[in-house]
Amino acid sequence: MGSTIASQEARVLCRQNRLTNTAGVAPGYLQANLLILPVKYAADFHDLCLRNPVSCPLLGKTSVPGDPHAVQPKGCIQSPDFDMRTDFPKYRVYEKGKYRESRQDLKDLWTSDHVGFLIGCSFSFEDALTAAGLPPRHQKTNTIVAMYRSTIPLLPAGIFTGGHCIVSMRPYHPSQIDRVRDVTRPYLSTHGEPVAWGWDGAKRLGITDIDQPDFGEPQVFEEGEVPVFWACGVTPQIAVESAGAQIGGLVFAHEPGHMLITDWTVDDLQRLRPGSST
Amino acid sequence: MGSTIASQEARVLCRQNRLTNTAGVAPGYLQANLLILPVKYAADFHDLCLRNPVSCPLLGKTSVPGDPHAVQPKGCIQSPDFDMRTDFPKYRVYEKGKYRESRQDLKDLWTSDHVGFLIGCSFSFEDALTAAGLPPRHQKTNTIVAMYRSTIPLLPAGIFTGGHCIVSMRPYHPSQIDRVRDVTRPYLSTHGEPVAWGWDGAKRLGITDIDQPDFGEPQVFEEGEVPVFWACGVTPQIAVESAGAQIGGLVFAHEPGHMLITDWTVDDLQRLRPGSST
Repeated sequence: MGSTIASQEARVLCRQNRLTNTAGVAPGYLQANLLILPVKYAADFHDLCLRNPVSCPLLGKTSVPGDPHAVQPKGCIQSPDFDMRTDFPKYRVYEKGKYRESRQDLKDLWTSDHVGFLIGCSFSFEDALTAAGLPPRHQKTNTIVAMYRSTIPLLPAGIFTGGHCIVSMRPYHPSQIDRVRDVTRPYLSTHGEPVAWGWDGAKRLGITDIDQPDFGEPQVFEEGEVPVFWACGVTPQIAVESAGAQIGGLVFAHEPGHMLITDWTVDDLQRLRPGSST
Repeated sequence: MGSTIASQEARVLCRQNRLTNTAGVAPGYLQANLLILPVKYAADFHDLCLRNPVSCPLLGKTSVPGDPHAVQPKGCIQSPDFDMRTDFPKYRVYEKGKYRESRQDLKDLWTSDHVGFLIGCSFSFEDALTAAGLPPRHQKTNTIVAMYRSTIPLLPAGIFTGGHCIVSMRPYHPSQIDRVRDVTRPYLSTHGEPVAWGWDGAKRLGITDIDQPDFGEPQVFEEGEVPVFWACGVTPQIAVESAGAQIGGLVFAHEPGHMLITDWTVDDLQRLRPGSST
């Protein structure tokens, strides 16, 4: 489904809970992961993103605490009816760093104290891979991409200490890896090129059983294929888990695989490079 | 020496080889590490910095390949007589990823093909630590800060794969660590807050003998003190070592401990945050 729908239309479908897994939806538009937390932790979380831009690439944040309708920079979401509490297909609720429940919207839990952060998502480069003849396996099998807890330490920022990077995985043949790296390299603001690849790469990341992902679903390997790993926007949720009871109040995130379609496109990638003017 | 000299004066002293270790020189001015490489590897190295901003925080780069006199953004170095080939106290020369020699200037080795990158340096926050009553040990003992190879993987970019983050170490008492983190946190563009601390932190970084640093000199621990580790701008040199023979032509770097004094000051830190306009 969804190969021709555009960003605003996709968000409305998500708001109406008529879309779930957003892989392959609205090609060419950058997708975003989510973290929403009380304003007193917002500065530390912002620093965490800036210190870990591969796993937590900051695309935008709410303009005013408590207001779920406006995001800065403005190009990220342009429609005035945007609502961060409804426009993701599905949400997760965390309490004292622990997953509590999943929800289709956050309307009755959001408070005037909440700040939302949009984090780049690797789904953004998947249609570029497909266009290059390198379609991600999970799109072909209609599954949720496999995600794993790695041993790459998250560099600490304020209360966020002791976390590790989550990685997503797509199988490719070793002969394809140079092209896969080249195609995804420009996507700096949505995880960019892989962080590791091959079976030795899996070992270096501390991943012992590729068939047992921590999030999403196992992926099918064809003859001779090896895993290729990208940093993953589920990482902030792990940072919240690590901060644990230090965080008072509720924290919200997207359900893995269930993203926001932004109004930014592939053409905005260069402009989104750190240090470029936006 | 040097507590009152300013940036341009310090650079001239370095040019004349009348200064060596720049720790404590020109307080309030941000210091920079160096990597110079042939232009064909410049895009990959630029991406490496953006993907690893804690160990490789990019402060500036030469405006035109082959021109050692001008740096962008302009605020970084304002004096028109600046020369990247002479204004560091001491340089290292790498050939095919291997250290070849140290030099006081690069005049006869620099080519019209070379691009220079200035990387933030942790010396920048040391006077803030001193002002907070937390002076770094190596300044009190007049030694070169201890630096170690850690097991934090450097996230790959193009030809730069397989590197690890170098860390600098300053001993502090556990009761001081919260303040040390708070004081250094704003210095995002010059490594910011620590990446690990304590003896368990040393273990997590893969450092087995604190008295055997890989660069610099061992530091004296006082009763009850533990190591505190920051990412270090020697890291790009390790990235070059890892790329090895893939790099044709000569690569240059600063001699560890021997930095460039820039014209940026503590007041520029907020402006230098990724995504801020410069």
